[in-house]
Amino acid sequence: MDFSLSESLQQQLKWAEQFVQTNIVPIELKVLHSNFTDQKSEIASLQQQVKEQGLWAPHMPLAVGGAGFDLVALGLLSEVLGQSPLGHLIFGCQAPDAGNMELLHHFATPSQQQQWLQPLIAGTMRSCFGMTEPSNAGSNPTLLQTEAKLDGDHWVLNGRKWFTSSADGAGFCIVMAVTDKTAPHHQRASMFLVPTDQPGYQRLRNIPVMGDVGSGYFSHSEIELDNCRIPAENLLGQQGDGFAMAQTRLGPGRIHHCMRWIGVAKRALNELIAYTQQRQISRHAVLSDMQTVQTWAADSAAEIAAARALVLQTAWQVQQLGFKAVRSEVSMIKYFTANVLQTVLDRTVQGMGALGMTDDTIIAFLYRHERAARIYDGPDEVHKNVVAKHLWAEQSNALSSAQS
Amino acid sequence: MDFSLSESLQQQLKWAEQFVQTNIVPIELKVLHSNFTDQKSEIASLQQQVKEQGLWAPHMPLAVGGAGFDLVALGLLSEVLGQSPLGHLIFGCQAPDAGNMELLHHFATPSQQQQWLQPLIAGTMRSCFGMTEPSNAGSNPTLLQTEAKLDGDHWVLNGRKWFTSSADGAGFCIVMAVTDKTAPHHQRASMFLVPTDQPGYQRLRNIPVMGDVGSGYFSHSEIELDNCRIPAENLLGQQGDGFAMAQTRLGPGRIHHCMRWIGVAKRALNELIAYTQQRQISRHAVLSDMQTVQTWAADSAAEIAAARALVLQTAWQVQQLGFKAVRSEVSMIKYFTANVLQTVLDRTVQGMGALGMTDDTIIAFLYRHERAARIYDGPDEVHKNVVAKHLWAEQSNALSSAQS
Amino acid sequence: MDFSLSESLQQQLKWAEQFVQTNIVPIELKVLHSNFTDQKSEIASLQQQVKEQGLWAPHMPLAVGGAGFDLVALGLLSEVLGQSPLGHLIFGCQAPDAGNMELLHHFATPSQQQQWLQPLIAGTMRSCFGMTEPSNAGSNPTLLQTEAKLDGDHWVLNGRKWFTSSADGAGFCIVMAVTDKTAPHHQRASMFLVPTDQPGYQRLRNIPVMGDVGSGYFSHSEIELDNCRIPAENLLGQQGDGFAMAQTRLGPGRIHHCMRWIGVAKRALNELIAYTQQRQISRHAVLSDMQTVQTWAADSAAEIAAARALVLQTAWQVQQLGFKAVRSEVSMIKYFTANVLQTVLDRTVQGMGALGMTDDTIIAFLYRHERAARIYDGPDEVHKNVVAKHLWAEQSNALSSAQS
Amino acid sequence: MDFSLSESLQQQLKWAEQFVQTNIVPIELKVLHSNFTDQKSEIASLQQQVKEQGLWAPHMPLAVGGAGFDLVALGLLSEVLGQSPLGHLIFGCQAPDAGNMELLHHFATPSQQQQWLQPLIAGTMRSCFGMTEPSNAGSNPTLLQTEAKLDGDHWVLNGRKWFTSSADGAGFCIVMAVTDKTAPHHQRASMFLVPTDQPGYQRLRNIPVMGDVGSGYFSHSEIELDNCRIPAENLLGQQGDGFAMAQTRLGPGRIHHCMRWIGVAKRALNELIAYTQQRQISRHAVLSDMQTVQTWAADSAAEIAAARALVLQTAWQVQQLGFKAVRSEVSMIKYFTANVLQTVLDRTVQGMGALGMTDDTIIAFLYRHERAARIYDGPDEVHKNVVAKHLWAEQSNALSSAQS
Repeated sequence: MDFSLSESLQQQLKWAEQFVQTNIVPIELKVLHSNFTDQKSEIASLQQQVKEQGLWAPHMPLAVGGAGFDLVALGLLSEVLGQSPLGHLIFGCQAPDAGNMELLHHFATPSQQQQWLQPLIAGTMRSCFGMTEPSNAGSNPTLLQTEAKLDGDHWVLNGRKWFTSSADGAGFCIVMAVTDKTAPHHQRASMFLVPTDQPGYQRLRNIPVMGDVGSGYFSHSEIELDNCRIPAENLLGQQGDGFAMAQTRLGPGRIHHCMRWIGVAKRALNELIAYTQQRQISRHAVLSDMQTVQTWAADSAAEIAAARALVLQTAWQVQQLGFKAVRSEVSMIKYFTANVLQTVLDRTVQGMGALGMTDDTIIAFLYRHERAARIYDGPDEVHKNVVAKHLWAEQSNALSSAQS
Repeated sequence: MDFSLSESLQQQLKWAEQFVQTNIVPIELKVLHSNFTDQKSEIASLQQQVKEQGLWAPHMPLAVGGAGFDLVALGLLSEVLGQSPLGHLIFGCQAPDAGNMELLHHFATPSQQQQWLQPLIAGTMRSCFGMTEPSNAGSNPTLLQTEAKLDGDHWVLNGRKWFTSSADGAGFCIVMAVTDKTAPHHQRASMFLVPTDQPGYQRLRNIPVMGDVGSGYFSHSEIELDNCRIPAENLLGQQGDGFAMAQTRLGPGRIHHCMRWIGVAKRALNELIAYTQQRQISRHAVLSDMQTVQTWAADSAAEIAAARALVLQTAWQVQQLGFKAVRSEVSMIKYFTANVLQTVLDRTVQGMGALGMTDDTIIAFLYRHERAARIYDGPDEVHKNVVAKHLWAEQSNALSSAQS
Repeated sequence: MDFSLSESLQQQLKWAEQFVQTNIVPIELKVLHSNFTDQKSEIASLQQQVKEQGLWAPHMPLAVGGAGFDLVALGLLSEVLGQSPLGHLIFGCQAPDAGNMELLHHFATPSQQQQWLQPLIAGTMRSCFGMTEPSNAGSNPTLLQTEAKLDGDHWVLNGRKWFTSSADGAGFCIVMAVTDKTAPHHQRASMFLVPTDQPGYQRLRNIPVMGDVGSGYFSHSEIELDNCRIPAENLLGQQGDGFAMAQTRLGPGRIHHCMRWIGVAKRALNELIAYTQQRQISRHAVLSDMQTVQTWAADSAAEIAAARALVLQTAWQVQQLGFKAVRSEVSMIKYFTANVLQTVLDRTVQGMGALGMTDDTIIAFLYRHERAARIYDGPDEVHKNVVAKHLWAEQSNALSSAQS
Repeated sequence: MDFSLSESLQQQLKWAEQFVQTNIVPIELKVLHSNFTDQKSEIASLQQQVKEQGLWAPHMPLAVGGAGFDLVALGLLSEVLGQSPLGHLIFGCQAPDAGNMELLHHFATPSQQQQWLQPLIAGTMRSCFGMTEPSNAGSNPTLLQTEAKLDGDHWVLNGRKWFTSSADGAGFCIVMAVTDKTAPHHQRASMFLVPTDQPGYQRLRNIPVMGDVGSGYFSHSEIELDNCRIPAENLLGQQGDGFAMAQTRLGPGRIHHCMRWIGVAKRALNELIAYTQQRQISRHAVLSDMQTVQTWAADSAAEIAAARALVLQTAWQVQQLGFKAVRSEVSMIKYFTANVLQTVLDRTVQGMGALGMTDDTIIAFLYRHERAARIYDGPDEVHKNVVAKHLWAEQSNALSSAQS
């Protein structure tokens, strides 16, 4: 075993850390509280600095314009960037674009790549991913209702999506739709590239989420597809491969999420420490003198460290063995890390008292929005079921081999 | 022991329950998402119905225009009203006005009562309470910085307050200020009646709290007192009695809060049940078929029931023995109930999934704003310290008497 | 609502409290660490004092030689007695005899009562209750395997029981056995009075439980019924009524258990306080000066108080409405209280450090044996299911009535 | 980063796993429930097989007769061995002997090594470590009371120790005693090698711990030193170095403990899975079909995996940087892992129901004795304080460097 990092990676992470603290954190509240459009130029200027540093789009191969980080390195960078809600956006590896880039890189035709992937990597266009539907449990793909029917050389899409993150301002949406109701469950759906200015595609609203309607990149929309006709060549990948491709997208995505959450949790812990160290509670004591606060910090630190160690180990395993072989481990880090995050955030809110309730610091924003970590991309309960099934099977295997 | 309720109280609670479900719950989201001013007439019309039913201002004696509920009855009503954020407002017993009415009823001169108490009871004016300050830990009164100096027949107030709830639209503010820095700690402060249009009194802003800037009744403001001169007769009660009066206000206030939280928690549990019973997770199952959801509901129900039983018992004890005798018990219900509430809300968010994150239901509003329950009016940690001190003393007493 | 207690009950509880602290607690470790037989005379002498005080067999009516406490009073006494593992035994209301007395009082024929009930009430005989079986989940009665077949004027019993508490030294066992495999599930079983010296009845061993094999009253046995022939008149109640009668036994039994657990929890909290107040951790501080210890005590006190209030309320409801009407509430207090107990015990062990691990104090005994509280008499999970079903049905009723 | 293991280490771990499951687990209950002396020959025969395999005393260098594992490898082996309470004993790396061997290896004179270390490494003698005292908080070394006074060429020791593990049957005890009351706190104590047959050294009793008095290796004794005279050359290391040497002993010891706990936790999880997979709860379902059980397993698996990843990372850091540099990290794994262990054990007890309460399986033994994990070697609270201090200092450093 060897937990050391290469000298060059250490340098890159150090630069990113410094950049996040010095250039991103100071503007995050302003950006989050404004209309996104008004902040675009300031964001673009920071993005330019990242590009110049060679850290832009770290998840993509060097050959196509990314920084070519492997999954472990990406995780470590994601931890740094996660300290601010703007971090990933400014480094060009923000959800949902990062996942979409990976999808397009793997499955798009050359001409699709030229049209859709290149502007994403260049950072000149944003995109969204339309999978979740309001009336169906996202964890059960067999309930998907949006349909795509082939009509001559066009697909006609009908259905409703919601929690389509960052749809506001996106150039296109990758839409998941049923193309064959009668196929085996996991071969029913396909993915489509739908330009957001296509007739029949309508962004109905930005859903108000935990107090924020949001705008631009920081929003989650409800989308209607009403006889939306798109050319046949806008099918992404093979017909019927929708779920398989979505899995491909989710695997590394969960690693990214988990490492980002580690970064969020670290931010929260640091805010707790900084605040309580200067908050007078009497003429002779500050809040951090209280054993309860010390316990919060020590518990948070341990939980974060444990989650971090497990996520990095899992990232390494995915790199070595592929996502499928460690699917149970990936489920494990999903719920474990999301719960650590929520617990840590809650302690920080409590430690900051009334101030923690206000939007004068970043903490309330994180407390509200990161609550979703235990829900999106498979709620805790679904992932625990995956892990339990795996444990049951392992034990059965152990029994079988013991008896044979 | 006798846990039965009088027939008349049962009828009153039943009417209130029906009224909350039928008339208040359906409009709550609209009111919360609008500018408060625009909703005033609709609210007033509901308030009128409550007045006609004889349930208006239930915490105030019949003689001064209230419904004359005792503390236990008030608790039971508060539980019903707590099911909607609008409940107490529509029944004329909302914080901070309810506490202010009690203060004025006990300590105001007849002329002060005429000027300030009567419009509050009539519901024609709202008020606020300026105690908490941004730069001082509220739990330590010796840190209070706002000062009032007598200058001829006027008091001159200087200082800054925040989390002054419902200041937006209030007619006056009861301000706590230091009148004698050299007095013993708990005799340093006094209370003042400050009209909100008084020069020198300025509402700087509504503080953005967990995603909401709020407006009117549903807001929390930052207030500046800059050489604000008020007549000497605006002193409320005796000079130096500020903290003692505040305690008077807080005692029953904590009972009200706790019973309101029980109502909030019940609402959350009911939303969880209603949602999961209809949410399909497969062709043959709804979400409430899952044992995990059943466990959430069963745990929530038990915790709510236990908190409720303890709060009612404490309300009865306060009635019998006075607040001072059961101060430790009141601290106990404060943190116990607030934590039950937060846990129950968290389970409901999880059970409702993505929908629970949106402001399309009341749950996200409750999740965000009721997080403050563990903070305001003394954070958990302060109340636990009160209880521990009491336990330590009890044990010492037991030891002393055993040894004598 | 009225939480006051009659003067006479207060006096009785006060006497019991004094007696437990002065006469029972000091001998409990000696009794628990000895062979039970050797301690009988000392126990009998204490029992005699209770009889003289008129508090013997408080759960039984005055008419048959008990003290005639109602369920609420019994609960309050049980709380006092629960502070020592010997409390109930010395007051003649210990499980399983107390439940057996109730069964015999309700269902036994006069001649059965003379033979079996009278010596129990007199305290000259002990008994046991044979229901749980090693190879079947106790929570599912349809899995019961012990059988009783009528052969002439005798019943022949075959099967195996375990966790038959206090069988060691008991005069008879009430055995639950299937009498009609083909009847509806809840009418398959009947109860039988089996003398422990009956041929075919064999106590195989005392099961080692959490480190203790135990002896006499403080033991749990495994029992074999091997063609055990008992006269037809030893059938208790009606054939096929086994489960219904068991429910009758369990209802008040759960109230007793819960109030006893409250007593155990109080004992643990008091031990924590007493220990930490005198344990030096430095030249200038004792352990109870630590905020963490204060938090443990405050949390434990609140949880105990809440559980207590809910259990008393439920006892009162059972008295008013009968067990069946509040079955869900009784399930609720079972798991809520058992979990409070375990949490409180765990905190006390931690607070007492190495000493808490030893059997030099009562805490390790309680920590080990009361772990069963979450398991016996229906594990948490089964009771939560009962409560959830009740909640689901209530909501459905609410919906039905809303729609009609 | 590289999480891979060498082929040879994988083979060694595989052999150990097989050996534990096949040869050790089947005899563990018999050994634990018997007098230790009666089991010595069976244990010795297993130890011989380990020696032949070259895995004996893995923590000691090859040069002195050990297997020469580094700290990470040792951790991984410890995880395997921890699955049975006999594992470490049979591999010659059991506490307290393992720590004592390390002490003697580092600090003993050649002649001391010949007399004391060689028989330990050979497995022909056992030892104990006398540090903890009954009347003093072990976490505060300044309270140590046992004294050693030089009298001519002898040291005279007086004091009392307890929780001296495995003293029953040990050949010598390493005793910590104050040699200079007036020295700075951490230089007051020294270590002494005391043969257990030395006059003045008396093993008073085996302390009953959680139901077990124990015997031989599996015991914890109370020891009296009453004018115990030992030759001057029995001083171990330098006078005044007692605490420094104890730290040396504790550092790797905590890694060992944590990895052993991981093994215990895995054992518990496996028992839960195996039991619930075969336990019928109805004609058509087994216990592991219940979502609650699945959640327990999934949570346990994730917590174990996270603790494991963090402990291994910390072991690697200790190897690279030395114990002192990662003291805070070592404290972190201590409380994090101990709490995971307790939680996992508790779930297994609950899942196994009544059977989990009995000593018919290993679970009750583990539940009882491993409760000490949160207490010995520094209770949770002390380690959290260490971590908090470290976090506070780090933040202060960050602030200092930011301001400079």
